[in-house]
Amino acid sequence: MILCEKPLAMNGPEALKMVEAVEKAKVPNMVWYNYRRVPAVTLAKQLIDEGRLGKIFHYRAQFLQDWTISPELPQGGTALWRLDVAAAGSGVTGDLLAHCIDTALWLNGGIATVNAMTETFIKERKHNLSGKVEKVGIDDACAFLARFQNGSLAIFESTRYARGHKALYTFEINGEHASISWDLHDLHRLNYFDHRDQGIVRGWRSIHVTDSDHPYMGKWWVPGLQIGYEHTFVHQVADFLEGVAKGRPAQPDFRNAYETQLVLDAVLQSAREQKWVSIPK
Amino acid sequence: MILCEKPLAMNGPEALKMVEAVEKAKVPNMVWYNYRRVPAVTLAKQLIDEGRLGKIFHYRAQFLQDWTISPELPQGGTALWRLDVAAAGSGVTGDLLAHCIDTALWLNGGIATVNAMTETFIKERKHNLSGKVEKVGIDDACAFLARFQNGSLAIFESTRYARGHKALYTFEINGEHASISWDLHDLHRLNYFDHRDQGIVRGWRSIHVTDSDHPYMGKWWVPGLQIGYEHTFVHQVADFLEGVAKGRPAQPDFRNAYETQLVLDAVLQSAREQKWVSIPK
Amino acid sequence: MILCEKPLAMNGPEALKMVEAVEKAKVPNMVWYNYRRVPAVTLAKQLIDEGRLGKIFHYRAQFLQDWTISPELPQGGTALWRLDVAAAGSGVTGDLLAHCIDTALWLNGGIATVNAMTETFIKERKHNLSGKVEKVGIDDACAFLARFQNGSLAIFESTRYARGHKALYTFEINGEHASISWDLHDLHRLNYFDHRDQGIVRGWRSIHVTDSDHPYMGKWWVPGLQIGYEHTFVHQVADFLEGVAKGRPAQPDFRNAYETQLVLDAVLQSAREQKWVSIPK
Amino acid sequence: MILCEKPLAMNGPEALKMVEAVEKAKVPNMVWYNYRRVPAVTLAKQLIDEGRLGKIFHYRAQFLQDWTISPELPQGGTALWRLDVAAAGSGVTGDLLAHCIDTALWLNGGIATVNAMTETFIKERKHNLSGKVEKVGIDDACAFLARFQNGSLAIFESTRYARGHKALYTFEINGEHASISWDLHDLHRLNYFDHRDQGIVRGWRSIHVTDSDHPYMGKWWVPGLQIGYEHTFVHQVADFLEGVAKGRPAQPDFRNAYETQLVLDAVLQSAREQKWVSIPK
Repeated sequence: MILCEKPLAMNGPEALKMVEAVEKAKVPNMVWYNYRRVPAVTLAKQLIDEGRLGKIFHYRAQFLQDWTISPELPQGGTALWRLDVAAAGSGVTGDLLAHCIDTALWLNGGIATVNAMTETFIKERKHNLSGKVEKVGIDDACAFLARFQNGSLAIFESTRYARGHKALYTFEINGEHASISWDLHDLHRLNYFDHRDQGIVRGWRSIHVTDSDHPYMGKWWVPGLQIGYEHTFVHQVADFLEGVAKGRPAQPDFRNAYETQLVLDAVLQSAREQKWVSIPK
Repeated sequence: MILCEKPLAMNGPEALKMVEAVEKAKVPNMVWYNYRRVPAVTLAKQLIDEGRLGKIFHYRAQFLQDWTISPELPQGGTALWRLDVAAAGSGVTGDLLAHCIDTALWLNGGIATVNAMTETFIKERKHNLSGKVEKVGIDDACAFLARFQNGSLAIFESTRYARGHKALYTFEINGEHASISWDLHDLHRLNYFDHRDQGIVRGWRSIHVTDSDHPYMGKWWVPGLQIGYEHTFVHQVADFLEGVAKGRPAQPDFRNAYETQLVLDAVLQSAREQKWVSIPK
Repeated sequence: MILCEKPLAMNGPEALKMVEAVEKAKVPNMVWYNYRRVPAVTLAKQLIDEGRLGKIFHYRAQFLQDWTISPELPQGGTALWRLDVAAAGSGVTGDLLAHCIDTALWLNGGIATVNAMTETFIKERKHNLSGKVEKVGIDDACAFLARFQNGSLAIFESTRYARGHKALYTFEINGEHASISWDLHDLHRLNYFDHRDQGIVRGWRSIHVTDSDHPYMGKWWVPGLQIGYEHTFVHQVADFLEGVAKGRPAQPDFRNAYETQLVLDAVLQSAREQKWVSIPK
Repeated sequence: MILCEKPLAMNGPEALKMVEAVEKAKVPNMVWYNYRRVPAVTLAKQLIDEGRLGKIFHYRAQFLQDWTISPELPQGGTALWRLDVAAAGSGVTGDLLAHCIDTALWLNGGIATVNAMTETFIKERKHNLSGKVEKVGIDDACAFLARFQNGSLAIFESTRYARGHKALYTFEINGEHASISWDLHDLHRLNYFDHRDQGIVRGWRSIHVTDSDHPYMGKWWVPGLQIGYEHTFVHQVADFLEGVAKGRPAQPDFRNAYETQLVLDAVLQSAREQKWVSIPK
């Protein structure tokens, strides 16, 4: 069995080879898009699948960090390989937007077209391996417009230059009847607005996702006591092993991750060519 | 007609004379406990009166400020009469807790007994009128336990020594089925939790009280656009005049304010005598 | 003197004629982009002008509403002219994004290029004037990527299909040293993060913009007591009249509004032609 | 070595015997008042010890739950021993306020006097062991006023009848220069207000306590990724073992827990006798 770090590959064609290899070998496989297993995110999926939101109009996601703002920060080597294009392939697109895209495909279905811009704010950094100042090849920031196959509009954004945000992965989904939002900085909460609530008491609900009838939480502490980031991996391993045992493979597997890779490729192509790019189905 | 600033008097006996005088003269009368007319607070009253909370278990209120912490601040005179016991009668008890008590009596009925403590943190201040350092006679802080006639327990607290709070008047009411909380620093919102919501999507709702079906708001802007503090007075004048026109006097009138005065007297007596004190019915 | 509702015109060429007319006539003029006069927004401007944010990397703004989701809602007539393209010119772009763009140009300087998408979710609505079902000509939603002249990246989004948001105008600016965010639903607060604060106590500050040294607030209530939406107009009239009196015209005047119009034109052109469009300087 | 669940005993005299026994035996000992090891709470302690708050005026704490509101809930047995006075000794006082008091003594020093009220809202419940309806002996709610030895005033409250709160342990401390507040429902955040910040940008800071220079967090994930409730126990074991290894016993030990027990005894006595009670030093 193979559990692979995300993103699956440097690009779609590489990823496809990996998919074909594991499918041919019939090896149970999974990719560490761990945020699907935050209980609040799993709850969002459940609410959407139950049809509570109705027709979806909007999806927006961002993954904001602020740790590479200093020009003194070098690139490359063990600690900073994420800043080295040779090691990382891309910058925030592959590192952070990959998460946003995986969640989005899972919650809202396929993306049809994207239109992106990227920027590298710091053009040169000392390289830890060569010791020399070298051109920075990664994207420091990436934002893109998108249209999903279900007709909803989307904006995605990621950067490592957003002062005040450490790992602010957020998403919000607006449907005909209800809306949902979530924020990694308070990962144990889900915000939910249901227009079908009576008018005078209608408002965004802050759901503290720690009850035993919330996803995964029956296995942890009593209500009110939150779990941490690492439990997302624990949940994923548990689901993976249960999937193997029952012959019902858990997701996201390599093929799911390949679909995310295709979106990433389209985003980077769109930014390079400055035009709308369609995702192959 | 008489519209009187709050608290109505220095103490209960004085207030009673005023009540008797206006009632004898049959003069329309009202006291400026304006916070009842914050739309969110009026909505809270409406929800309680509809029975949504069920049996009430707890009431808590606080009014926290931080503007008298400096020992250099003098007492007395036009700007600082609130710190001069001869002019103000008491400190935070008459100035701030009076508001909390008026709202509480309105929302939760009569208070049966109280048990208070007060403190004067700065013992002497220069007096603006005499120019001399004089003893401070007011209470800088006051907290009290209470039992309402309906069996609910309460805590009340007010101080001018709570760093970071300018005019943080808050209350929270916990009932069998639902809870409500409110905060003057965001006066246009009401927080509401209803246990009868389905379990997995249960959470505190933040109600933006700006819709046309919310109290008073049909007369103001479109949804989403908040009103300010001064509108509480506008609402009160409107209700008062409408009450006069229709022969159905609006509240709080002098008699209501007298009931608040009786609680204030009991609170101050309790603090002096360090024991539980009952409120006369 | 002329105080004109926003947006100034249906498009740039129309707006230019108006600018030329008022400038030729030397008539004091102003456009009701009132959100500049929310004290918290004015404070944001002040902090930026003082250089506290340093180099700006990101700007993001959204104006989200949810009042046109029902297909039963008709278009046109006195109450619903905003949905009638003949009367409104465009949908959310001219109505809502115009505000976002005015604020952005004021806070962050000129926009160089934009790349937009628009959508009309409900294609046909009954028209209040004709009584017939007619094609909807306005944009229900618009999102665009942008690059400012100062090198910062931006995303803007507006819609009337975001369940749970009544008039959620928000912006966030990320600079090298500090970030700012604001939200019309709590217009009296400004959120501020300063990386120069000591590490262990660094965090987003929620500034309750009600102190006498905050913009405009010295003229209103005591600290902690918020003002409402309508005061933005009061402030604007005051500034306008003071500008007339002192011979230093207040902004935004017709020329400022023309610049906003040029961005609006570029946004709509970009959405039509599905490509990046530059703003004329 | 002994690590004992809290509270240490049913009452002070029992606790004292335990203290004397472990001290005589020279056995390393500790009590599971785990909330001291929430990184945000440890950070609060650090800020106070550095003198950042200055003279303390106010301390307030609450521990609110809502799981025993139904009269149908039985008492006693494995799952519900907390509702059986014979097993639990007291209700919320020993179960929940014990935590609040331990933290308070640690952060703000000794408590001098208390004045409490308790209530049992549901007077009878079926007992799981006898199968019969029996009198409920525990306190469902407890609130008390207190004065600390350092002159600060305090209010404490706990209940299991606060709809909407699962395990809402909160505290707030107001000092001359700064204030701190914390909330178990978002245990990874600390709220901090420093009056010495420049006036126009002064506000409550929401500190996301996940940086490597925050207490304990250098051992866990990267900034922005929160830890869960169980880590408080992990931290406590680590500190305990390090204390044993270095010969510098970690706290809270049995003697600390005895001091908390003395406050609990005084609270219950005060509620019974309806008067102020002093804590023995």
